[in-house]
Amino acid sequence: VLCLFLVILWANDIMGKSKQHEETGTYLPTWDSLDKRPLPSWYDEAKLGIFIHWGVFSVPSFDSEWFWWYWRGTKQANCVKFMEDNYPPDFQYADFAPKFTTEFFNPNDWADLFQASGAKYVVLTSKHHEGFTNWPSVNSWNWNSMDVGPHRNLVQELADSIRNRTSVHFGLYHSLYEWFNPMYLSDKENGFKTQDFVKTKTMPELYDIITNYKPEVIWDGDWEATPEYWNSTYIPSLAVQSKVSDTVVTNDRWGQGTMCKHGGYFTCSDRYNPGTLQARKWENAMTIDKKSWGFRRNAQLADYLTIEELLQTLATTISCGGNLLVNVGPSKDGTIHPIFEERLRQMGQWMNVNGAAVYKSQPWKHQNDSRTPGVWYDLVLYTTNQGKVYAFVFTWPSSGILALGSPLATSDAASVDLLGGESDITWEPLSPTGVGIYVPVIKPSTTSAKWLWVFQLTGFV
Amino acid sequence: VLCLFLVILWANDIMGKSKQHEETGTYLPTWDSLDKRPLPSWYDEAKLGIFIHWGVFSVPSFDSEWFWWYWRGTKQANCVKFMEDNYPPDFQYADFAPKFTTEFFNPNDWADLFQASGAKYVVLTSKHHEGFTNWPSVNSWNWNSMDVGPHRNLVQELADSIRNRTSVHFGLYHSLYEWFNPMYLSDKENGFKTQDFVKTKTMPELYDIITNYKPEVIWDGDWEATPEYWNSTYIPSLAVQSKVSDTVVTNDRWGQGTMCKHGGYFTCSDRYNPGTLQARKWENAMTIDKKSWGFRRNAQLADYLTIEELLQTLATTISCGGNLLVNVGPSKDGTIHPIFEERLRQMGQWMNVNGAAVYKSQPWKHQNDSRTPGVWYDLVLYTTNQGKVYAFVFTWPSSGILALGSPLATSDAASVDLLGGESDITWEPLSPTGVGIYVPVIKPSTTSAKWLWVFQLTGFV
Amino acid sequence: VLCLFLVILWANDIMGKSKQHEETGTYLPTWDSLDKRPLPSWYDEAKLGIFIHWGVFSVPSFDSEWFWWYWRGTKQANCVKFMEDNYPPDFQYADFAPKFTTEFFNPNDWADLFQASGAKYVVLTSKHHEGFTNWPSVNSWNWNSMDVGPHRNLVQELADSIRNRTSVHFGLYHSLYEWFNPMYLSDKENGFKTQDFVKTKTMPELYDIITNYKPEVIWDGDWEATPEYWNSTYIPSLAVQSKVSDTVVTNDRWGQGTMCKHGGYFTCSDRYNPGTLQARKWENAMTIDKKSWGFRRNAQLADYLTIEELLQTLATTISCGGNLLVNVGPSKDGTIHPIFEERLRQMGQWMNVNGAAVYKSQPWKHQNDSRTPGVWYDLVLYTTNQGKVYAFVFTWPSSGILALGSPLATSDAASVDLLGGESDITWEPLSPTGVGIYVPVIKPSTTSAKWLWVFQLTGFV
Amino acid sequence: VLCLFLVILWANDIMGKSKQHEETGTYLPTWDSLDKRPLPSWYDEAKLGIFIHWGVFSVPSFDSEWFWWYWRGTKQANCVKFMEDNYPPDFQYADFAPKFTTEFFNPNDWADLFQASGAKYVVLTSKHHEGFTNWPSVNSWNWNSMDVGPHRNLVQELADSIRNRTSVHFGLYHSLYEWFNPMYLSDKENGFKTQDFVKTKTMPELYDIITNYKPEVIWDGDWEATPEYWNSTYIPSLAVQSKVSDTVVTNDRWGQGTMCKHGGYFTCSDRYNPGTLQARKWENAMTIDKKSWGFRRNAQLADYLTIEELLQTLATTISCGGNLLVNVGPSKDGTIHPIFEERLRQMGQWMNVNGAAVYKSQPWKHQNDSRTPGVWYDLVLYTTNQGKVYAFVFTWPSSGILALGSPLATSDAASVDLLGGESDITWEPLSPTGVGIYVPVIKPSTTSAKWLWVFQLTGFV
Repeated sequence: VLCLFLVILWANDIMGKSKQHEETGTYLPTWDSLDKRPLPSWYDEAKLGIFIHWGVFSVPSFDSEWFWWYWRGTKQANCVKFMEDNYPPDFQYADFAPKFTTEFFNPNDWADLFQASGAKYVVLTSKHHEGFTNWPSVNSWNWNSMDVGPHRNLVQELADSIRNRTSVHFGLYHSLYEWFNPMYLSDKENGFKTQDFVKTKTMPELYDIITNYKPEVIWDGDWEATPEYWNSTYIPSLAVQSKVSDTVVTNDRWGQGTMCKHGGYFTCSDRYNPGTLQARKWENAMTIDKKSWGFRRNAQLADYLTIEELLQTLATTISCGGNLLVNVGPSKDGTIHPIFEERLRQMGQWMNVNGAAVYKSQPWKHQNDSRTPGVWYDLVLYTTNQGKVYAFVFTWPSSGILALGSPLATSDAASVDLLGGESDITWEPLSPTGVGIYVPVIKPSTTSAKWLWVFQLTGFV
Repeated sequence: VLCLFLVILWANDIMGKSKQHEETGTYLPTWDSLDKRPLPSWYDEAKLGIFIHWGVFSVPSFDSEWFWWYWRGTKQANCVKFMEDNYPPDFQYADFAPKFTTEFFNPNDWADLFQASGAKYVVLTSKHHEGFTNWPSVNSWNWNSMDVGPHRNLVQELADSIRNRTSVHFGLYHSLYEWFNPMYLSDKENGFKTQDFVKTKTMPELYDIITNYKPEVIWDGDWEATPEYWNSTYIPSLAVQSKVSDTVVTNDRWGQGTMCKHGGYFTCSDRYNPGTLQARKWENAMTIDKKSWGFRRNAQLADYLTIEELLQTLATTISCGGNLLVNVGPSKDGTIHPIFEERLRQMGQWMNVNGAAVYKSQPWKHQNDSRTPGVWYDLVLYTTNQGKVYAFVFTWPSSGILALGSPLATSDAASVDLLGGESDITWEPLSPTGVGIYVPVIKPSTTSAKWLWVFQLTGFV
Repeated sequence: VLCLFLVILWANDIMGKSKQHEETGTYLPTWDSLDKRPLPSWYDEAKLGIFIHWGVFSVPSFDSEWFWWYWRGTKQANCVKFMEDNYPPDFQYADFAPKFTTEFFNPNDWADLFQASGAKYVVLTSKHHEGFTNWPSVNSWNWNSMDVGPHRNLVQELADSIRNRTSVHFGLYHSLYEWFNPMYLSDKENGFKTQDFVKTKTMPELYDIITNYKPEVIWDGDWEATPEYWNSTYIPSLAVQSKVSDTVVTNDRWGQGTMCKHGGYFTCSDRYNPGTLQARKWENAMTIDKKSWGFRRNAQLADYLTIEELLQTLATTISCGGNLLVNVGPSKDGTIHPIFEERLRQMGQWMNVNGAAVYKSQPWKHQNDSRTPGVWYDLVLYTTNQGKVYAFVFTWPSSGILALGSPLATSDAASVDLLGGESDITWEPLSPTGVGIYVPVIKPSTTSAKWLWVFQLTGFV
Repeated sequence: VLCLFLVILWANDIMGKSKQHEETGTYLPTWDSLDKRPLPSWYDEAKLGIFIHWGVFSVPSFDSEWFWWYWRGTKQANCVKFMEDNYPPDFQYADFAPKFTTEFFNPNDWADLFQASGAKYVVLTSKHHEGFTNWPSVNSWNWNSMDVGPHRNLVQELADSIRNRTSVHFGLYHSLYEWFNPMYLSDKENGFKTQDFVKTKTMPELYDIITNYKPEVIWDGDWEATPEYWNSTYIPSLAVQSKVSDTVVTNDRWGQGTMCKHGGYFTCSDRYNPGTLQARKWENAMTIDKKSWGFRRNAQLADYLTIEELLQTLATTISCGGNLLVNVGPSKDGTIHPIFEERLRQMGQWMNVNGAAVYKSQPWKHQNDSRTPGVWYDLVLYTTNQGKVYAFVFTWPSSGILALGSPLATSDAASVDLLGGESDITWEPLSPTGVGIYVPVIKPSTTSAKWLWVFQLTGFV
């Protein structure tokens, strides 16, 4: 049961502990302190996560999960027309909620699929900007998934299924702000000098989901108000100090000015993919449907990334130290559509062949090749200072020779293998520098390499 | 715009004023102080009010406005069966809200009707135990009449229309508790030692409706929790000190143990009609549909009070010092059904003939006759100590003589008139005491007295 | 089970019998023959029937039962606006049908009510111009009350309940034409030279309802096409020759040019009330809701006839030889609203007092009084040539004397009684002609006469 | 405009022409005559068509397009439970129709997709066994796509879009029988001795779609009643003699005993794929979703054929003289889901490489290889008696040599090419017979052959 006062007590408690040091494992609710916390190792090793955007927006399932805002906020023409064409004039967004039926939602099927994709963590929208909570929040009465629509605790059900598959971590997305919550709008009108919304909605709900569902990723989102308004430094503190403390990670969207600056790992912007090595652990949160995070009923095949594009994004991301958080949008019926399922299973199929080059890898000294475009690298250490370099090759060389400028063979004993293909492939040093690899024959009967080819370089620096 | 902090400031403000005296017109938030406040005179003079129960319960419109509780709380067989027979298994109460359409709601028509009924005040449910607010409460997002269903501010619209008819006062019913509000249930589970619900819902909403809609009647309802839990003494204080201060009245349902004990006027119980003179001003809140306050789609004629029964209830109520608050239940379409309209217009027709005996009357020394049952009295003063006694006669005497035991003629000049009929009717003293009235001829062509006959006794004590 | 071929055989059969004479009880399908058939006596004796308009139009329940036509046919502004304001742009009339739920329809309650009203027959819309059949017509698949909406056989259910109350006859309304039936429209476009609609819809359905539900009144309606198009002379023939032959009556709306000319009794026009004696038996079909036959959700009290107006219509109607067919419009929920119930029960209450003047009466030589307006007459024979004259008096004479110009006392022994009031009332001959009645005292305690007063004149001519 | 009588006239007309001979191009309505008609050549040359199952069944979109029958007919447990879990008890199949919204249906997008798939004809369900017509049938009032649900003429819209893409032929599926049509059930109960249903529904509707939409494929379906009941020989006659006469083809499902015996081409059974050469032109009508023809909302990736499976089915089908009719089930929203789109576009991609081996091909003397399983053949003639043999190879030989037993080189000049790959591939005669092909290197950069490899054999017999 929620207790608002407990939250307040807890907040005070943390404040009181201002003398404590992070060495004790207790971090203060300040960026100074929190930014010093090392990320739990599982997160960097995971490389691949699944993002799930699901909510009342899955009912109109039109344009994007920002439908409400585009319809009523910016009055975007296509959204306004969609409503005029298909609904009574008086229809409001809240009237969509009873149609969020989820009758086919089977959390075990979802968890099996996510596991099969090769992802090591899953992040579900516990609540998006629309404010509808996917768990029975006492602070969101009649605007949550138990009271209207699904009549189910979506967060709990998925958490349980994910946790029964020990290789996958469970996380929650949570939007700090809510487009149209009148309490939030009132605070905003007051120049964020009042905190009614924070105290009666945000804080109690965050306390609720953190303590009840123990997410190992807390993925928050706001950029309108300051972290002081949100008291947002308290949240990672709470998470760190709650029972999930050792393994929890958070992102960096804790209010205006924090993105790419403070928090746990950095997300910086949607589909962030800098192409260069970053100083701090970061995440590329992106979507298979190029145009939306929420499911769009009228999306066409061309709107979905191909498996090749998806894997290329993975390669460029991990080469530069990022994790890839791949988003799927389930339907209001509770299904993950087969096209999403196919992409996820294709990723898993590829990971089965190439996972050794991905999980627990680290950026190499070169991120991409100096000679041939579309070749990216990473490094997997097997002993403290010995490792293999992996080259992720987007395009099969038509010449028959893959000319790489960055790797240097340390001896003639250096070897090159194609993951899922031939081993010990012929190579020769290139002049002035680099290595030429005689790309092997692809045999449809035996070669499992495809889509994006990974060459394993042993004895190269 | 609501400001939770303003509420708190205001509460503190009142507390700080504990030195003030009620003589200054500022009452302290204690029963001692509040109970001393004299009721504004308009209320006692009004005699007749209209109660309106309207909300999401008007959608199932089955059994009564307590439908949700009977369905999900006590699991009453007929309500459970009704849902099984007519809705999908997963249908929840909140799913009814979009069907609360009110497309035919015309507040001016309503106000005209209430005025025509002879009522002098109107009390609308701003929020019933279901928690759905009939105004756009920022504390009840997506569970209010602006966000779902009507998409209108029902409280505001009716308030405006009523206020354009100067003879009628506008009041609001407000349920302190909410059957299924998880915040309330949480406080309840904590033995009402926490007040999350009060602080984040009840208080801000009461502040909101009192300051924005300035109701002259505040009709609250709770009997589960203590007034201390509700901080309920603050509410009349607030009302008294707000701009409506001079004319506002409140009732007595401010938590466990307050009914018939503290507050403004007493309501004691539903359909309270003691039949004896009461020390304090009271109100008989009752319904035209004998079985429900909310509209019932399957009510039959026999379920509605006849005009005779309704007027008899009025007579017995005012004879004993009460006001009559007659309830109608509008439909989810926004209409007051013709059978209700008929009863209200019949009341108005009767009031046009007999209003002189009702408005501004006071209880007489006898409430009902000592000799003939079904005869009730009141008194209207014309000068400080001179007045006329009115006898409300339920049954026309078949003998031709109405034998009354209580009134005594002070002289032969004493006179008897039938309101809406003959004047100066023959009478004679009865032995040992009382008066015999030779009831006059009813002429369908001219006599307007009907349903319940009122004899005006001048010069009787 | 329907059999189209049986219908055709039956039609041929009738044709073949063209040699037969009406004396044998078999009438030919020609107006000449059919017009000669005497009406069964029960119909004229009944005087009062109930008309019920119920169908998909009871769902929008707006403007009138012609809603579809006004919305889509003539594009009447209020109907078009109602749809624009409350429904998606693409909503069609057929989309209303699933909302015709009738969950509260209890045919026994209805039958009890009709019996209590004093009516002696009931006519239900088996199918209105919208074409939706209230029984499971095999010729109207998915556009009938079993397939969509009620999922009940409304005709059967009401027929059964009515027949269990032996004093009431059961009849069916049936619209020959259907506004928007494409088959009908196609015939119409062909100048009614094709009869596809008649052969595949009208005839089989009429055969179906006549043989299965055996209505004693067949109340058809069309005025657009010729009776030749409809083959409408066959229908009364069929009815007469089916098992209901002895008691069945039909009306006169069998196509263009038949109204007030051919068939069974005459209806001439809606609310036909000529005020003068008619040569042939006729019926005044009218509505309690002055503006509609179907239920209107937004009707107000002023839209309903008062009991006084209703009884005056009855009196003027029977005085001139008509029957009164009083219409009520049930709701889509399956209820007859209390305001209708009240009017019907008031009629029944009045009939209990005055029925002797109504049932089995016949027009008198004078229809209304020559001296005092608002007085209408009829005659009830007790022996072949002896009877009592009844005067239906709308307004109580303020003078105390009711001066009638038409009745002449045959002797001093002639007597006057007020039904439900005093007997043997003082009267005196008037000069030059007529009778002056000293109207008696109304005693609320004993007089049951009200609303419309009936004086019984014995020994007057 | 429909005219029932025209249909009858036409039928009579055909009967009267019984003296004519088929040589004149007019076929008699007898199997003898009709079976002699040669199929228009376009059909055999087309090889690949798209089947579209779309109707009210796309709304529940559960189990299969036979949902109604399984729910109400056989009462299959999963369908019954689905309804119990998700709908009110009284919900009927017809209540689904208003939810058949098709708001995203863009016939041009569909037509573009079908064209891109390489298909040469498209067959849309004009009406499935549920009886709901996808065009505004005057014989199916309020049970068609114009009156309820889409409010669009789906047949017309798709026909127009298809016809604007000249390479694709337009066809219509039409179910002769209707599970629950009461008229049909009545005929059935009569042992099909009455033909009410045929005369008032089937015939006029077939006449309507044939004359108005001029389908070049008429794909009918029934097996319950005899062709005599259906008068089904008249339909191909009508089609042949209407304006589409030269190019129209029909199938063989014209009533009991006709499948695989009479009509145009043979379909024999669903997913008919005999694996041996057939005497008469046939069609393998099959589905991408292995379990259903209609869209299933809860279908998973594993339920869909892979592109490899789909192409193998194509190869086995055309090798034996069949056409492949690949079914997709659009959603009730009007979309063809991306997984279907992907399969269709993959087919098109493959056709772009291998189309020369498919279109206008004919069965070879061997259907599949005598030595290596998973190799199927066809033949394309370039001159009257010269052609190339194509081998469709399902599995890439791991040995590096594809050993075929059936083709015999006529000289050393015989050559072997891989479509979309290397030309002039090394081969050698095998002993005792056949040819060994040294399968070439697959180069991801240039080779476009994939999924199913086609070797072109020139100079082989």
